[in-house]
Amino acid sequence: KHIVVLPGDGIGTEVSEAAKKVLEAAAEEFDHTFTFEEQAIGGTAIDRYGSPLPDETVAACKNADAVLLGAVGGPKWDQNPSHLRPEKGLLGIRKELNLFANLRPVQGFSNLLHASPLKREVVENSDLLIVRELTGGLYFGTPSERRDGGNSVVDTLAYSRHEIERIVKRAFEAASVRRKHVTSVDKANVLESSKLWREIVEEVSKDYPEVTVEHMLVDAAAMKLITSPSQFDVIVTENMFGDILSDEASVLTGSLGMLPSASLNDSGFGLYEPVHGSAPDIAGEGKANPLAAILSAAMMLKHSFGMNEEAQRIESAVSEALEQGYHTADLDLPGGQQVNTERMTETVIDLLK
Amino acid sequence: KHIVVLPGDGIGTEVSEAAKKVLEAAAEEFDHTFTFEEQAIGGTAIDRYGSPLPDETVAACKNADAVLLGAVGGPKWDQNPSHLRPEKGLLGIRKELNLFANLRPVQGFSNLLHASPLKREVVENSDLLIVRELTGGLYFGTPSERRDGGNSVVDTLAYSRHEIERIVKRAFEAASVRRKHVTSVDKANVLESSKLWREIVEEVSKDYPEVTVEHMLVDAAAMKLITSPSQFDVIVTENMFGDILSDEASVLTGSLGMLPSASLNDSGFGLYEPVHGSAPDIAGEGKANPLAAILSAAMMLKHSFGMNEEAQRIESAVSEALEQGYHTADLDLPGGQQVNTERMTETVIDLLK
Ligand SMILES: CC(C)[C@H](C(=O)O)[C@@H](O)C(=O)O
Ligand SMILES: CC(C)[C@H](C(=O)O)[C@@H](O)C(=O)O
Repeated sequence: KHIVVLPGDGIGTEVSEAAKKVLEAAAEEFDHTFTFEEQAIGGTAIDRYGSPLPDETVAACKNADAVLLGAVGGPKWDQNPSHLRPEKGLLGIRKELNLFANLRPVQGFSNLLHASPLKREVVENSDLLIVRELTGGLYFGTPSERRDGGNSVVDTLAYSRHEIERIVKRAFEAASVRRKHVTSVDKANVLESSKLWREIVEEVSKDYPEVTVEHMLVDAAAMKLITSPSQFDVIVTENMFGDILSDEASVLTGSLGMLPSASLNDSGFGLYEPVHGSAPDIAGEGKANPLAAILSAAMMLKHSFGMNEEAQRIESAVSEALEQGYHTADLDLPGGQQVNTERMTETVIDLLK
Repeated sequence: KHIVVLPGDGIGTEVSEAAKKVLEAAAEEFDHTFTFEEQAIGGTAIDRYGSPLPDETVAACKNADAVLLGAVGGPKWDQNPSHLRPEKGLLGIRKELNLFANLRPVQGFSNLLHASPLKREVVENSDLLIVRELTGGLYFGTPSERRDGGNSVVDTLAYSRHEIERIVKRAFEAASVRRKHVTSVDKANVLESSKLWREIVEEVSKDYPEVTVEHMLVDAAAMKLITSPSQFDVIVTENMFGDILSDEASVLTGSLGMLPSASLNDSGFGLYEPVHGSAPDIAGEGKANPLAAILSAAMMLKHSFGMNEEAQRIESAVSEALEQGYHTADLDLPGGQQVNTERMTETVIDLLK
């Protein structure tokens, strides 16, 4: 299997390197051959090649079996014109590779729950998966432009039936191997696009009689994620709603530094990245928590390579490392031992074997 | 002063009646004359007049000095076609009366904080005001329609410079009599409309040198509301972002039944309503918490009638009632006394005198 690594910016370099090491260890352990190729994206790519997404990067990704991304962005590029911003690289690669299905699992680690802003009894047993549509909706619709000489502006939330169907199917597929419940989030009391979304969810649900389905308005969902997060199994929603709700959900369990994500196309190909950002404040210091990137690598094994046992082994090694008290500076594990990125990675590798 | 009361559906009737009584008591106490006129909106208006917003209701509101709304909606009308849904009444009246500025204060009551899903240390001292643009953005833009014979769909997020300027000014005005900090929430790394929004915030901020301003991406704001709600003072944002964030914020303090709102036009005229819904499950039982409606009436006195002292008196009476342990069934006040809607209202009135 050939894997393109896009380290990106800030701690992206460190955490993607850590995830790569874990993948190498898993390959050795299970007798696979993984080859790796590094390419530029984001701010680093702007500095080196004058573009947040060089053609070479796109071409390399298209020839790979999967892509591992670190993180993009940083204050250095914040004042750039919009086509020269690191995020454009991320939006661009999603679109180029047709990665329409963004999966963001949120699960609490019981020995980290004390760091949650929520009370333990509210957040414990939460185990949800947000399935966000990633290449359509409000973030990609056209027109998206100034008008009347700059005195007005429009953005467009557009979907085809096909785009909604494929993401909704993904959510039902995911639910059928989980707790068999889908919450479809929309604003069907106001938006036309949400009405079509709701109709399609009803249609698709007929093919999954074992999965229960519920429709929830996005404002209600924003409340319920906080008041009873454990009542969700799979949430499926439009790009922008998913952006907001998945970030909201990411802080519930008190361990943003632990959350992985997968962005998949129709054929199992995917880009895997931690949910956290590039953390420019601690970049290069060897302090970054590599676990979200490592868990993203585990998602790669599962979703792109069908290597479920291997993925499971990595996930267990991560849990085990935490249970033994190993943690990076971002986590507070009473009685545990604080270690750096490298040591954390080695610990996971040792436990994996 | 002439006030139109729109009881609406479910507990809307009970809580608007309670707020009206408190307004009458305040009028007596401070020697004002308030006249009241009841009109239909929402599901009740659909049942009676075949429209969620009868012309007579609009005309009456246009002739009033302020409008007090209970709540709209209920399962009875959920299957109706979209022009016959209660929410259309609400969206319609906002647009008809040009109520572009929705103010939603969120403040914790220290003896109710134990009911918050958040840890006390996270949520205490939170006191924020969400200023949501209410008549533009994604919920009102055109086109909003099916296309290609139903195989695709668009909604539109549209703003004119003028629409953004007036809401942003409102936020700065509000901040200048509060803690002098504005957080403008957008998605300027993706949306054109957010870029214009951000530019206008920068321009307007020059007229308020004493107010500090910060730009925050909507996904980051959704996180920060949970991890450090007390760091916000005034939040200003687009209609749909404001819908999501204000509902998210409404559950932070554990007392959704306490939250008022005001929707204002350019000249101080406004519609005042509790943030909670019509709660059809307890409608007509006399159990509803009237405090959010009563606090909405206080906002009316302040924002539409300039009666600051009167408003303050109502707010103090509400706090005092809670401090004395009086509460309705939705609130859990250890050692307190649970009372019904009527008794709660009388308690506030007694304390006001
Ligand atoms: C960087 C930004 C464009 C991106 C998004 O909103 O899609 C990010 O917030 C994310 O959620 O992956
Ligand atoms: C009922 C609905 C249209 C409305 C809105 O989204 O504006 C409500 O959710 C609100 O926030 O007042």
